[in-house]
Amino acid sequence: MRKQIYYLLSVAKKKGDASWWVDLFLIALISLNVVAIVLESVEPIRRQYQTLFERFELFSIVIFTLEYVLRLWTANENDKFRQPVIGNIRYAFTPFAVIDLLAILPFFLPFLGVDLRIIRMMRLFRLFRLFKIARYVNALRVIQKVLDDKREELLLSIVFTFFLLLFTSTIMYYVENEAQPDAFASIPETMWWSIATLTTVGYGDIYPLTPLGKLLGGIIAVLGIGLFALPAGILASGFSENLGKEIYQEGACPHCGK
Amino acid sequence: MRKQIYYLLSVAKKKGDASWWVDLFLIALISLNVVAIVLESVEPIRRQYQTLFERFELFSIVIFTLEYVLRLWTANENDKFRQPVIGNIRYAFTPFAVIDLLAILPFFLPFLGVDLRIIRMMRLFRLFRLFKIARYVNALRVIQKVLDDKREELLLSIVFTFFLLLFTSTIMYYVENEAQPDAFASIPETMWWSIATLTTVGYGDIYPLTPLGKLLGGIIAVLGIGLFALPAGILASGFSENLGKEIYQEGACPHCGK
Amino acid sequence: MRKQIYYLLSVAKKKGDASWWVDLFLIALISLNVVAIVLESVEPIRRQYQTLFERFELFSIVIFTLEYVLRLWTANENDKFRQPVIGNIRYAFTPFAVIDLLAILPFFLPFLGVDLRIIRMMRLFRLFRLFKIARYVNALRVIQKVLDDKREELLLSIVFTFFLLLFTSTIMYYVENEAQPDAFASIPETMWWSIATLTTVGYGDIYPLTPLGKLLGGIIAVLGIGLFALPAGILASGFSENLGKEIYQEGACPHCGK
Amino acid sequence: MRKQIYYLLSVAKKKGDASWWVDLFLIALISLNVVAIVLESVEPIRRQYQTLFERFELFSIVIFTLEYVLRLWTANENDKFRQPVIGNIRYAFTPFAVIDLLAILPFFLPFLGVDLRIIRMMRLFRLFRLFKIARYVNALRVIQKVLDDKREELLLSIVFTFFLLLFTSTIMYYVENEAQPDAFASIPETMWWSIATLTTVGYGDIYPLTPLGKLLGGIIAVLGIGLFALPAGILASGFSENLGKEIYQEGACPHCGK
Repeated sequence: MRKQIYYLLSVAKKKGDASWWVDLFLIALISLNVVAIVLESVEPIRRQYQTLFERFELFSIVIFTLEYVLRLWTANENDKFRQPVIGNIRYAFTPFAVIDLLAILPFFLPFLGVDLRIIRMMRLFRLFRLFKIARYVNALRVIQKVLDDKREELLLSIVFTFFLLLFTSTIMYYVENEAQPDAFASIPETMWWSIATLTTVGYGDIYPLTPLGKLLGGIIAVLGIGLFALPAGILASGFSENLGKEIYQEGACPHCGK
Repeated sequence: MRKQIYYLLSVAKKKGDASWWVDLFLIALISLNVVAIVLESVEPIRRQYQTLFERFELFSIVIFTLEYVLRLWTANENDKFRQPVIGNIRYAFTPFAVIDLLAILPFFLPFLGVDLRIIRMMRLFRLFRLFKIARYVNALRVIQKVLDDKREELLLSIVFTFFLLLFTSTIMYYVENEAQPDAFASIPETMWWSIATLTTVGYGDIYPLTPLGKLLGGIIAVLGIGLFALPAGILASGFSENLGKEIYQEGACPHCGK
Repeated sequence: MRKQIYYLLSVAKKKGDASWWVDLFLIALISLNVVAIVLESVEPIRRQYQTLFERFELFSIVIFTLEYVLRLWTANENDKFRQPVIGNIRYAFTPFAVIDLLAILPFFLPFLGVDLRIIRMMRLFRLFRLFKIARYVNALRVIQKVLDDKREELLLSIVFTFFLLLFTSTIMYYVENEAQPDAFASIPETMWWSIATLTTVGYGDIYPLTPLGKLLGGIIAVLGIGLFALPAGILASGFSENLGKEIYQEGACPHCGK
Repeated sequence: MRKQIYYLLSVAKKKGDASWWVDLFLIALISLNVVAIVLESVEPIRRQYQTLFERFELFSIVIFTLEYVLRLWTANENDKFRQPVIGNIRYAFTPFAVIDLLAILPFFLPFLGVDLRIIRMMRLFRLFRLFKIARYVNALRVIQKVLDDKREELLLSIVFTFFLLLFTSTIMYYVENEAQPDAFASIPETMWWSIATLTTVGYGDIYPLTPLGKLLGGIIAVLGIGLFALPAGILASGFSENLGKEIYQEGACPHCGK
């Protein structure tokens, strides 16, 4: 029976059999949960359908908890987690199992006597239900592949990025702090300017006013933006290569297709 | 006679013959319609030349309706729509025929007893006249080719984009909602912040104020922009490849020209 | 003597001879003119050194007029403009000759009885002195080469860009005009929003406020930015290829350097 | 003994020996200094731990001065600076030695009778301690390599960039100065608009208001952004190539991996 449940819960290989219907039901439930999270955030809708939202939440928690417990119990059916107890514990630390747990955790915290304020923050964890869908959507696993492929380059670029952020923030803090003690109050707060400038978002809530600040800010903008775009560019090219691989034949140059 | 009208309306192959003059007349009329739409939107011009605009609109509608009816009637001359009635109906559902219909539809709705408020919205449909020009401008058909070539990649990227938008909006909504209940009023409204940030437009009408919001907003900006630029980049590279193909020889690598 | 003046004015081939000193003097004068234009724009500096600026302007005009007249007179020494009068007239229409004329024109207009208001606008023409330097800086001629090389692609992209601008502006005008009759007053004025959004500048002086406007504006931003970046990308890649050619050997792939 | 100190201070080749521990200690001290600079900028933290910050600053200065003096003294052990006095002086002008000196300089200036206001500005020099870390982080030396590799292309692009900035600022100054005498007060101040626009940051503190200014500003934005992104793009591609080289085999094309 454990074997049967395991096959029901794992991603179906054939369209139309029982496992496929279970997948479909779970995908529908996850999607409805995401829709519920979005709709519940709209004040008038939340007020009018509060009971409905609460009932749906309770229903979802029951199903997701059942799913989590069953997945944990049947983990031994997978060759990677063959050992009775150790296998189950090891399964509990796989990314998908952690996501499954975090998605239902906020509901059980009050019973564990956790502070109410923390529980409120934990509501954000309902967002993990969004990630449960990754089990069924192949394309989303490309993310993991890219992060693996480009790990070294990404790490180096993040070091650069952090350096650049620290460097530009410190300069602008010393230059602008006297003229704008509120906006450029400290180096960490000046980083908000650095991020807004180097990503070219430029909300306009904070910008240099002194001539020296504008001069240095301008030089930082012109030179820094190219450097800052590096990690983003590496991520983008990584995705683009991996998306390309699924369409072009393997081994072909991603540029000329030969 | 139906054959003659069909050749008059189809894109001319030889400069200077009757069909070429019909093309020229229709292109001129479409261009004048676009100019009229733009000029009519300017209040002082609209007021002064109202009668002229109304007359030109009536004239255009008559010509475009005639064009639509004739194209529909002569569709059978095209080998693809050979069958008498079914061919005409099938032609009516081709993109160009739909555009031709939508471009004249708003004028005829009042006679069908449609609500005046909807008709006002339908005025936007006059914009479809802009697309009528695509029949004559080869370059604009590249759009369709790109959408065909890169369909799979675009679909995957749109899934990513939507995921990213949903994910970042939900985080920022939970973090900023308490401090800014108006700007971050709900997840759908927070998406406006996500779009403005991830596209790096940054109008500055909405941005995080709390330290946690700025921290998470900064991380989202730094990491998300590269991911978000993916669909745009795929579209751009698709166009650039297709534009290149028309200039370089076919089969040559669009990168090194070999 | 005409031959001697021609060689004095043309770009020197050997460092240190008379022609080289003339080049140096003209480059210095052009640079000083640019500095003068910038400094004169600063109110306190303009007021204090007004006489100095006026004298320097007079001196520059005398030299540049002399240079223009001599270049025109000695144009026949160039094989391309060999014919006595026709050669001089043909030279007068070369880009550099036109720039030389426009750079001094505003000074002579009052003597020709031109309206004072137009003369004021013509002061902008002093900017052409900046371009006179292009004769001596090889690198700036790359601009011309790129515009020649990528003419067809640029033309196509400009058609796209204009289409996109017209299309998005018309949509947003119809959607937002009622809610913001000042900012989205007409289609031409809505183009300011389209440009600010599609270039991702986003000053924040104009943005949609209605839910429908935000929805459509968001879709336009996400999809349009990639398309809009096309002409800019073509220009950039054109420059990058041409800059590369001067460093790598000709015929080599600009990507792998082979 | 000088030889021993030289090896202690130079980057360790073997993990765990004495030189490695010295490296670790200096890296830790540099990192703590950066943390201290950041924390000290936060008003409440600075007030509460002022004595601690002052003591740590004194301790750091002592160590860094000792490090600088010892490095200067032992420079002769390096084959490049073999000659007794001339070698030491030549070492003092290497980038790392200059950084080491500038990082401690502000502390010693008061003893040299330098004006207090200048000393305050010199506090910014503490930032050079951040760069001391470059000696130990291999990846940061990529910056130097890129600047060397792409020197010619970068120089050409900086000339372009400056030209573009000067050109667009002068146009917008003449067009907008009358309507906005404060924001577009002079050409140098208009450059702030040019930078904000051409980098697409667009803070929204300064933008054209007149129809002509919006028209020209729009054209500048559409055409200029691609050109302006050139130096940034060259830097980015340079980094990306150099980062790639460390992962792919040398000699392989960074694009197709062959």
